[in-house]
Amino acid sequence: MAQRLFLGSPLKSVAATSAFRTSGRVAGHPGRANLLHLSRPFATSAGTGDYLTRKHSDQKALVHGEPSGPKILTGTIPGPKTKAGLQNLDSLQDTRAATMMTDLDKSIGNYVVDLDGNTYLDLYCQIASLPLGYNSKALMDAAKSPEMIQMLVNRPALGVQPHSTWAKTLEEAFMSVAPKGLTQVFTAMCGSCSNETAYKAAFMYHQRNKRGFNSKISNEDLSTCMKNSEPGSPDLAIMSFEGGFHGRLFGTLSSTHTKALHKLDIPAFKHWVASPFPNLKYPLDKHQAENDKEEARCLAIAEEKMKPNSSGSPVVAVIVEPIQSEGGDNHASPKFFQGLRDLTKKHGILMIVDEVQTGVGPTGDFWAHEAWNLTTPPDIVTFSKKFQAAGWYHRPELRSDAPYRNFNTWMGDPVRALQAKTILHEIKKHDLVGNARETGAYLKKELSTIESKYPGTISAVRGRGTFMAFDLPTPEARDVFVTKLRALGINTGGCGPQSIRLRPMLVFQKKHADIFLDAVEKVCKSA
Amino acid sequence: MAQRLFLGSPLKSVAATSAFRTSGRVAGHPGRANLLHLSRPFATSAGTGDYLTRKHSDQKALVHGEPSGPKILTGTIPGPKTKAGLQNLDSLQDTRAATMMTDLDKSIGNYVVDLDGNTYLDLYCQIASLPLGYNSKALMDAAKSPEMIQMLVNRPALGVQPHSTWAKTLEEAFMSVAPKGLTQVFTAMCGSCSNETAYKAAFMYHQRNKRGFNSKISNEDLSTCMKNSEPGSPDLAIMSFEGGFHGRLFGTLSSTHTKALHKLDIPAFKHWVASPFPNLKYPLDKHQAENDKEEARCLAIAEEKMKPNSSGSPVVAVIVEPIQSEGGDNHASPKFFQGLRDLTKKHGILMIVDEVQTGVGPTGDFWAHEAWNLTTPPDIVTFSKKFQAAGWYHRPELRSDAPYRNFNTWMGDPVRALQAKTILHEIKKHDLVGNARETGAYLKKELSTIESKYPGTISAVRGRGTFMAFDLPTPEARDVFVTKLRALGINTGGCGPQSIRLRPMLVFQKKHADIFLDAVEKVCKSA
Repeated sequence: MAQRLFLGSPLKSVAATSAFRTSGRVAGHPGRANLLHLSRPFATSAGTGDYLTRKHSDQKALVHGEPSGPKILTGTIPGPKTKAGLQNLDSLQDTRAATMMTDLDKSIGNYVVDLDGNTYLDLYCQIASLPLGYNSKALMDAAKSPEMIQMLVNRPALGVQPHSTWAKTLEEAFMSVAPKGLTQVFTAMCGSCSNETAYKAAFMYHQRNKRGFNSKISNEDLSTCMKNSEPGSPDLAIMSFEGGFHGRLFGTLSSTHTKALHKLDIPAFKHWVASPFPNLKYPLDKHQAENDKEEARCLAIAEEKMKPNSSGSPVVAVIVEPIQSEGGDNHASPKFFQGLRDLTKKHGILMIVDEVQTGVGPTGDFWAHEAWNLTTPPDIVTFSKKFQAAGWYHRPELRSDAPYRNFNTWMGDPVRALQAKTILHEIKKHDLVGNARETGAYLKKELSTIESKYPGTISAVRGRGTFMAFDLPTPEARDVFVTKLRALGINTGGCGPQSIRLRPMLVFQKKHADIFLDAVEKVCKSA
Repeated sequence: MAQRLFLGSPLKSVAATSAFRTSGRVAGHPGRANLLHLSRPFATSAGTGDYLTRKHSDQKALVHGEPSGPKILTGTIPGPKTKAGLQNLDSLQDTRAATMMTDLDKSIGNYVVDLDGNTYLDLYCQIASLPLGYNSKALMDAAKSPEMIQMLVNRPALGVQPHSTWAKTLEEAFMSVAPKGLTQVFTAMCGSCSNETAYKAAFMYHQRNKRGFNSKISNEDLSTCMKNSEPGSPDLAIMSFEGGFHGRLFGTLSSTHTKALHKLDIPAFKHWVASPFPNLKYPLDKHQAENDKEEARCLAIAEEKMKPNSSGSPVVAVIVEPIQSEGGDNHASPKFFQGLRDLTKKHGILMIVDEVQTGVGPTGDFWAHEAWNLTTPPDIVTFSKKFQAAGWYHRPELRSDAPYRNFNTWMGDPVRALQAKTILHEIKKHDLVGNARETGAYLKKELSTIESKYPGTISAVRGRGTFMAFDLPTPEARDVFVTKLRALGINTGGCGPQSIRLRPMLVFQKKHADIFLDAVEKVCKSA
């Protein structure tokens, strides 16, 4: 066992200091790190859900074998076994962000169990990435299939030695839900590298158009790029939005603007521009006039930044999330996105929609951007998380002019693509997108009622499907609220400076919503 | 089925044009793209290996059930089924880099089978990434294990909700072979993102030291980084070597210098410096004096570039491959690497050793850098490929000062970590590192004999273990040689401007080497 250097180390958890709470609404989720810092266990009222009062719906269950509710056995969280488990892991890997250590064998459906046997209703779900619930039977069956074993054992380099069944897997996993107009799929490994490789495609497409679609590449371009110099390595930009999160690699981090903690000390592309994202008032239907005005303001600024004479580098593409997630669950209207699309068309700029967190059903549409009814589809749509597989759909023209230009050894993972196929099959079979829509409508109605009962406590209930959020008055109050929910056996996470985001799985039903709502109401009462 | 836009499209394969053969030895592997371009099938002399003359060794077989040799059934490669399969896939994904389409069910050990039933001895192995041979029994058994199914079905977000057995997996997969002094492991998804996140760690460490190890972070740092501006987003560099390859994401691409094709049109960090890598003469033992001089020259230039008054951005770390792979299998002596380490220590710069391609045994050491016997170990060692799992080992001090700073949703893939555990177990059980050393010594001796028999054809036979390469007189001659080998049922790949690289699996034995050597000799004779 390696030396345990970091236990009780003097390193200060700067995440919890106010220094990291940068100005404005885009500061990210400060403080989440200290919710369950090893040195600061918090008290529970151990029990089996005596706070439950809502009449649970008698819908047909999507998951069998789930417990009837959460159950907290230990007087503090983390309990002793979890604490010891995390300490042991910390000798090898940083655990300061860990909010629990899971016992996956005992977890089922919407319920995750920790090492001490505490059972939580999970509305955070491995950072919004689990689609079908713990120990999903369909995924278990798929895991035992000969083709899964084949792909595990003989991992292909899909670019140079694709295997016989890869096209079939792509068809079955991705193409039946390909966004309109996007007939091609580029497979990658995670959300960050999906966005990075999509950016590369945008740059290559832009430069190819600039030099003439079939023109010869100049020797100057070829020799300068080897030295990271212009014109071969051009000074061009991806435009993003303040409050947007698109990943943490060097390109995507330059277009991420949620939290200083993510960006500090890392060299960035200095002239990649960010534009303000609408700061809307909720509920949307009660503030339409002022929200319209705010969206028009943001579009006007965005257009200025798209213009060639803007102070930043020339913009080749704009990337946008349908709902800014890490940045605080910030919404905008279909009209805003249509306006943005119109601007990109007007200025010859590509539109990349980042559906890494919103995609694959939770908003009540398979892709959140479907609800916009754009007159021209986006050029690229990126995905990861709930699909388990990552990558991006694109228009055929976005394929590079030569092989090997957007390339790596593995180019995705067929194991995860096989899982995407199963996930898609289950979504269709059980209409899980419809379930997210129906459960979400119920959740929103009930949360809005709680909001009106406790107006000083929770506010700005918002969301589509079960992809919901609400605000607390301060970052500190948000952190306390998350902690109190966890002590009641409800696992959620923060986003933005003072929001709580709900990211349940697609099998989250009204009966689960009832448990969550009862817990929220109990915490509101105690506030 | 999506529309087949790219079949017979007018897109010109620029990879094959001379424009991409940029000056010097660092041009990468031009032309590989056209070796098997769909529109250009090449003729075979279909047969079952009538060229085989070497007496195959009667070593104990490491793989059971392998065929006795390669077997080409079709008159041209690609054969009709492979061609149709690639065309079908091309409707969804770019296949222009594909050199074959595999039938993985029929592939076994060192032999890969294509859709037409052609059987190749595989010395390229999914771009140097397969460790134990196709359909390895040990990996098959591991794929069926309950813990593998568990990890497939319930993929954890390892940073926030690590599972109970993760520390044990890390111990068993990675820690018993951790490079000296490196007690921590950061898990990632592929070689590129391993290097990118290692760079991030280096930048954060550098800035933390600069501001004082436990100093408060200034508001100016926090606010400027949100705008990609200095001082929060500092103008700092990773130094790399000309001819080095470290990945294709935005940070790693700025430190990759193998081929213009990889870098063209993509914005780069302009002031990240590259220094010349020794251009040695082979065999090394016959050119020691001039090679020593060349290494001293390169070290002197590297030191100039490390100095604060260098024209590039201040260097926080240098990254280097033990053997430049993509760049042409360029070697340097242990003395060179010790000299480099001394310079990094002298100038307060971190040393990152990129073992993505060299690691996990093929060079005859588990980590290629072990052979250097450095007086101070590297600060970071990155890995991927043959380990199936990716990441980097590091000194404890390289852990960031706060959680969430080097972070993403999944933080690696425990499925692949479980495979690394099995791979490691097999390597130890069968002494596969020793096998690479022994087979490599034989291969080198025999290849050197062929080199001396056909001095105008192949040259510069070089390598450690089975991680070998040799040169052809021109890029075109190299491409023809690879094509002729493939027509004989031997799958290899190019690297550098005119080299062929051998990247067999760890179960490649003398009897396989004999088949390869007979094929090389036959192609040399025909030249």
